[in-house]
Amino acid sequence: MSQSSILLQQLIQGDRKALARAITIVENDVDGCTEILFSLPRKNTVPVIGITGPPGAGKSTLINALVRSYSESGKQVAVVAVDPTSPFNYGSLLGDRLRMSEHFTNPNVFIRSLATRGSLGGLSEKIIEITDVIRAAGFDLIIVETVGVGQSEVEIAGLADTTVVVVVPESGDEVQTLKSGIMEIADIFVVNKSDREGAEHLQQNLKKLMSHPKHENWTVPVIKCAATQNQGVDELIAKIAEHAQSGAMQTKKTYLLAEKAYRLIQQRRMKSIQKKALFEALAEQASDPQFNLYRFADQFNN
Amino acid sequence: MSQSSILLQQLIQGDRKALARAITIVENDVDGCTEILFSLPRKNTVPVIGITGPPGAGKSTLINALVRSYSESGKQVAVVAVDPTSPFNYGSLLGDRLRMSEHFTNPNVFIRSLATRGSLGGLSEKIIEITDVIRAAGFDLIIVETVGVGQSEVEIAGLADTTVVVVVPESGDEVQTLKSGIMEIADIFVVNKSDREGAEHLQQNLKKLMSHPKHENWTVPVIKCAATQNQGVDELIAKIAEHAQSGAMQTKKTYLLAEKAYRLIQQRRMKSIQKKALFEALAEQASDPQFNLYRFADQFNN
Repeated sequence: MSQSSILLQQLIQGDRKALARAITIVENDVDGCTEILFSLPRKNTVPVIGITGPPGAGKSTLINALVRSYSESGKQVAVVAVDPTSPFNYGSLLGDRLRMSEHFTNPNVFIRSLATRGSLGGLSEKIIEITDVIRAAGFDLIIVETVGVGQSEVEIAGLADTTVVVVVPESGDEVQTLKSGIMEIADIFVVNKSDREGAEHLQQNLKKLMSHPKHENWTVPVIKCAATQNQGVDELIAKIAEHAQSGAMQTKKTYLLAEKAYRLIQQRRMKSIQKKALFEALAEQASDPQFNLYRFADQFNN
Repeated sequence: MSQSSILLQQLIQGDRKALARAITIVENDVDGCTEILFSLPRKNTVPVIGITGPPGAGKSTLINALVRSYSESGKQVAVVAVDPTSPFNYGSLLGDRLRMSEHFTNPNVFIRSLATRGSLGGLSEKIIEITDVIRAAGFDLIIVETVGVGQSEVEIAGLADTTVVVVVPESGDEVQTLKSGIMEIADIFVVNKSDREGAEHLQQNLKKLMSHPKHENWTVPVIKCAATQNQGVDELIAKIAEHAQSGAMQTKKTYLLAEKAYRLIQQRRMKSIQKKALFEALAEQASDPQFNLYRFADQFNN
């Protein structure tokens, strides 16, 4: 048996160090990566919960409360944090520690920070592969945290089985005006910090906006939470479970697979193209009066 | 001479009907498209101004005022509107008429609406090609209007020489909390509807946030406008011209070319992959207990 097969067997049996090593192999696309991915068992039933929202909405605190509750009921939870606004967004151990210190020694909880693709907030290039590797390790639930900025909210909708959008009363009307996009990706809305002024008003507004069923059998619920006081967390957990069981999920699963397959194909086909190399070639060639961008790009078609 | 060469000659000489036909050929990628693109003259000096911001920020009114001012001073202006929230986002003539009716018979003004790639607001797939075709037609300036939602703000930053972000006093603090992404793409900020309460406060806040030079020689200005009363429009025009002349522009031009080349290569390489076909294949295959997404995606590597 090859080293990567052994590693895969170990992680499937629950070895967390093997899981961490496998993620590193996949994240950096080094030897053994393809073998691990091609041998992943079919465990499409472990739900991935995407948690997104503006900076300052209290996502980390909410996730802390979720993780506490899940692990107290004996569930194994993995958290993948992709936060472009975090000073720790290069996946440092320190970042993980600060975020989730209370769960750090809990064997039922696995936490990993990932680097983002850039300041505009695209998810980590390897997020699809990494969640699938974690799926194989026998968790009951995977939570992916991302900031609702730029591209990441579009991408989380193509990755998570259930997308939870977290807003705060201060968000007020901005939700309607600024972010029509966020409306469409939410399977569940959370009005966090619900002890603050305006929470009730925001909840009512969102409920009105979301009153038409998003899919057959699913109307987007709007839940008030005060994560620091652990309020509303049980209701959120119940709604997450309900969404997973809803009729909407079967179609969504295939849609998510198609989105993921598309992105995997795109990654592979673009692997040979580095923006930096394009920049350097263009810095040299673009001043030529005969230069034409379309003929330049055409060289790279194969 | 081929038909597309003739068309290209005509549009270069200022024939607006030939331009409209060439755009349609490029937008639909039909016969003659490649020939037109490969023969485009090098006119990289026509500035593309991206105007983005939340729905309701008054972008169309501001563009109306800009177009009026430019055309009164004898300049030829093209406007490309990409608005996913508009009921007219399938490029209908009606949409163009309603938006810009006052300019519709002005020979110095060319207006085109484009379809978006989907509800999350990616720019039109052919926006790069279309702006380059318009560039060849001898305009002094091209304005691209897009709504700051989802992907489009990331994409406009990779397309426009100068990106103008329009906000309104009602946006208030949301600018800081919700949209860190938008800070990074702005070359110029406009606080529109500046006769409303809070405009001064928002301008001061944005100025503070933008007080560090974005590039050598360029600090992002924050301009108050009341487009309906034509206030601040001259200042905006002056700043757009100033940005075009700034030292920041030379590096940015090459960066934009590299971004565009990358996207052109990606489009071409992914041309054979249809999400719908992936969905259908997956709906059939994914229930197989032996199914593996990575082996599935690997079939499409070439």
